[in-house]
Amino acid sequence: MKEKFVPDIVVKRLPWYLQTLNQMAREGLHTVSSIALADRVGTSGAQIRKDLSYFGEFGKQGTGYSIYFLIEQLQKILKVDRIWRVSVVGAGNLGRALTRYQGFANRGIDICLLFDNDPGLVGIRVNSLIVRHVDSMADDIQDMKVKMAILTLPSEAAQATADVLVGAGIQAILNYTPAALMLPKHIQVEHIDPVLQLQRMMYYLGEE
Amino acid sequence: MKEKFVPDIVVKRLPWYLQTLNQMAREGLHTVSSIALADRVGTSGAQIRKDLSYFGEFGKQGTGYSIYFLIEQLQKILKVDRIWRVSVVGAGNLGRALTRYQGFANRGIDICLLFDNDPGLVGIRVNSLIVRHVDSMADDIQDMKVKMAILTLPSEAAQATADVLVGAGIQAILNYTPAALMLPKHIQVEHIDPVLQLQRMMYYLGEE
Repeated sequence: MKEKFVPDIVVKRLPWYLQTLNQMAREGLHTVSSIALADRVGTSGAQIRKDLSYFGEFGKQGTGYSIYFLIEQLQKILKVDRIWRVSVVGAGNLGRALTRYQGFANRGIDICLLFDNDPGLVGIRVNSLIVRHVDSMADDIQDMKVKMAILTLPSEAAQATADVLVGAGIQAILNYTPAALMLPKHIQVEHIDPVLQLQRMMYYLGEE
Repeated sequence: MKEKFVPDIVVKRLPWYLQTLNQMAREGLHTVSSIALADRVGTSGAQIRKDLSYFGEFGKQGTGYSIYFLIEQLQKILKVDRIWRVSVVGAGNLGRALTRYQGFANRGIDICLLFDNDPGLVGIRVNSLIVRHVDSMADDIQDMKVKMAILTLPSEAAQATADVLVGAGIQAILNYTPAALMLPKHIQVEHIDPVLQLQRMMYYLGEE
């Protein structure tokens, strides 16, 4: 299914399609045209048809896509059809909030490790997890074959921690710190910074 | 400065340029070529030159950009050169973590209101704010002329709350819930969902 090179910008849109299709399925819909799907996602029908064409033929001219079939295919493509173990590094407010986040469980994500270096946090319980000390991080991640990590620690510690994570086998990092990480090319990094998103919107705010 | 129509995809990249330039300034750099800036941001020099050309002539052939000058210009373009008041709606773990987030203060963002409907949360102090009841939300937002809001409440309440916010004058919403909001075209919405970003990266993870 993955013979062709798929641009990252296409891969980025697939989770949106999947989420929107899941929403449509919950609403009781069974089929959808590329245009109707595009309207919800905020793109064009042509874009959706082109993006999906990288992976095969999923729709029929005139009848559109079967929502369930497309969900199944997208889950396979994105490898969301299994559970991925994820480690949270940093057990401050944000790290604890994410560990408790209800939205992970049924979407392929199992937060299974939570680390901090603060003696006041190590040992406390967050949901079903006990905060572990970062000293055991590399070993724990290797033992549990964890491939993804979420960084919710102070920026100053981000690069050194990311280096340890990559050394322990982490292949993908969701970075909640403002730090720009320098990592090997094959490591996936996504950045979540509410400031950048707020700043993007400021551009459009009315003066007064 | 804003005669030309600027595609949203360009506006989206500007906060990244600004953040990277600020980082370079902190490192003591004074000038930067479009290629060196592009390397840090993860794009191409041509992309950066094209994006900036929407707003004017900021660099000189051969000498590159003055970092300070470009920071100043980008701050003006994005209207980050002033303080924007922002309301957080939802004082659960995530809402409290965001209200306490250190990264807002010196980047144009003042979290000035925090709401919830839970009697157990209304009245508690988070940083310098007291959690207010959502019943007074519309009035408080109008009184304080707040234009941006961050939604950190349960998905089920997201649409109804967003409608109230827009009615009270909110023009931009940063949505941390998985809910897709249906709002008038002129309202800016950005979505933060860690699941989508994790799913994008799953595509690249090695099988084993």
